[in-house]
Amino acid sequence: MAIDIHTHVVPFDFPPYAGSAAPTKWPQMASAQNCRHRNVMIDGKVFRTVPDECWDVGRRLEHMAATGVTRQVLSPMPELLSYWLPADDALTLCRHVNATMAAMVDQAPDEFAALGCVPLQDIDLAVRELERLMASGHFRGVEIGTNINGVAVGDNRFLPFYAAAETLGASIFIHPLHPTGLDRLVGPPALVQLLAFPGETALSIASLITGGILERHRELRIAVSHGGGGLALTLPRLMFGWEHLDIAPGGRTPVEQARSLYYDTLVYDAPTLKYLIETFGRTQLCIGTDHPFIIQEPAPLKRIDALGADEALRDLLLDGNARRFLGE
Amino acid sequence: MAIDIHTHVVPFDFPPYAGSAAPTKWPQMASAQNCRHRNVMIDGKVFRTVPDECWDVGRRLEHMAATGVTRQVLSPMPELLSYWLPADDALTLCRHVNATMAAMVDQAPDEFAALGCVPLQDIDLAVRELERLMASGHFRGVEIGTNINGVAVGDNRFLPFYAAAETLGASIFIHPLHPTGLDRLVGPPALVQLLAFPGETALSIASLITGGILERHRELRIAVSHGGGGLALTLPRLMFGWEHLDIAPGGRTPVEQARSLYYDTLVYDAPTLKYLIETFGRTQLCIGTDHPFIIQEPAPLKRIDALGADEALRDLLLDGNARRFLGE
Repeated sequence: MAIDIHTHVVPFDFPPYAGSAAPTKWPQMASAQNCRHRNVMIDGKVFRTVPDECWDVGRRLEHMAATGVTRQVLSPMPELLSYWLPADDALTLCRHVNATMAAMVDQAPDEFAALGCVPLQDIDLAVRELERLMASGHFRGVEIGTNINGVAVGDNRFLPFYAAAETLGASIFIHPLHPTGLDRLVGPPALVQLLAFPGETALSIASLITGGILERHRELRIAVSHGGGGLALTLPRLMFGWEHLDIAPGGRTPVEQARSLYYDTLVYDAPTLKYLIETFGRTQLCIGTDHPFIIQEPAPLKRIDALGADEALRDLLLDGNARRFLGE
Repeated sequence: MAIDIHTHVVPFDFPPYAGSAAPTKWPQMASAQNCRHRNVMIDGKVFRTVPDECWDVGRRLEHMAATGVTRQVLSPMPELLSYWLPADDALTLCRHVNATMAAMVDQAPDEFAALGCVPLQDIDLAVRELERLMASGHFRGVEIGTNINGVAVGDNRFLPFYAAAETLGASIFIHPLHPTGLDRLVGPPALVQLLAFPGETALSIASLITGGILERHRELRIAVSHGGGGLALTLPRLMFGWEHLDIAPGGRTPVEQARSLYYDTLVYDAPTLKYLIETFGRTQLCIGTDHPFIIQEPAPLKRIDALGADEALRDLLLDGNARRFLGE
């Protein structure tokens, strides 16, 4: 068994825009030069060219067979989270994406688990969609961005969402989105994901600690993509602040709180992965690949092998930790 | 011998503003409640309350005796770098700060080395001030911010500055300043330094690699404060991009380039320090404390002791690496 908690879905198509606002940010799909790819169009421009593995279950299963992953946790391409649309339009889009994912789960229920999306720009609407998803039987929880229109996920306006997720037993996968620091990049667009994601992620997760969310909702099951980004290196600084500068509510230390979250292994080298296991604990890392996108880890099991881990740790990394994150 | 490469200076006072622009951002000093402290006033507000160790050589030497640091590298409080002032005003302020530091070096030449400041918002002026500093005999180089008014230090507009620093043998200390991501913080002002500095620093140093600066100027001696912030965790991502996505010029790999820089040890815990030594190499870490500011490391030598390092590594961390950074 090997569970990959970080894989993305893009639907083959989107319904035409039927709302009342300007439809500029409503996504569309268009043919791409390579017949196995399609272009995600946003605001009349190609946002990203994506392969058929984004929606095609057969192709996805082929890829899994080739890499040794036996089960994928599906989540939307983050740009589909739609926090920037009017809330009712976002709900329409989320439901289309969620329906796509539910259909994929129906096609291969043993191979896929799904994390849906909810329109967090409207907390009430988001909570109602979360309730619907969790009642549907197709979803284990949801993916959310590191920020909602620039507001970090630790802001207390999101408390009703976290309370609902805790009550419903919904797993939450946090993924960087529209990261801070874009104006600091010198180079091609791929630097957004490679360089801006880690800092954005560290700030986002730190806000869950300094904002008191993790202390208040201790039963939440949260996984952080990209190995938590820069969080591991920020954690000793948070500890220093917690000990000397009163930066967060009392209770568990920032390190204890960080060790209650799950993290994927998408860090591209063995010494870094070892450092994360030391920092966050043997029980908190899960395979994550970013399949089928361009920065995906092509050989996730080889990364685990390269650790020279004992059998127990290997089992935890391959599936034990992921199953706990999923609430199994 | 133990050299601390990360310590800051604030002058006891500033000259009155004599330029022609609105003087709102010109700093002033004012008495503070605690008679050993003074308030740095910017735009009519207390920017920071700072202790007399910022300017008082005797008090500074007392502190050094207590912590076991035998030599400090002085650099300006970053907010004094003044990139946001009109360039000629900034030069006036830089010269006042530089004169303060030169006088401190004169008072204790064996205990202090100085890194001055230059107005990088005007490259020609900055290069001329750098030449003046290096000719004066008081300075080993300069401190610069991670960004100059939002432009990362890897932008090629700064090439003439790096060329001059390389030619003059000036050491460069890079320190976070006005970091990106402030809108993601949930909590008190101390989070700016604790949480926003690491991501800002990682982006800044990455820009030196993706912008080709380090490849072009291989003789530069650059040290990065705060252990390089989140850089160590970003580096495998840079390597992935370098191998697969053509994100930086050829030549040395991002890891090789990162291992040509120096980093301070200001990371607040031993496992993190070990990880940095593994990542950047035994020959690249130097003691750094942020003395005399609020997030300073109070016992830098104990941090080194906690590593259980062999004698050779201990010597490198205490002074060998710092001396190479300083060009000795």
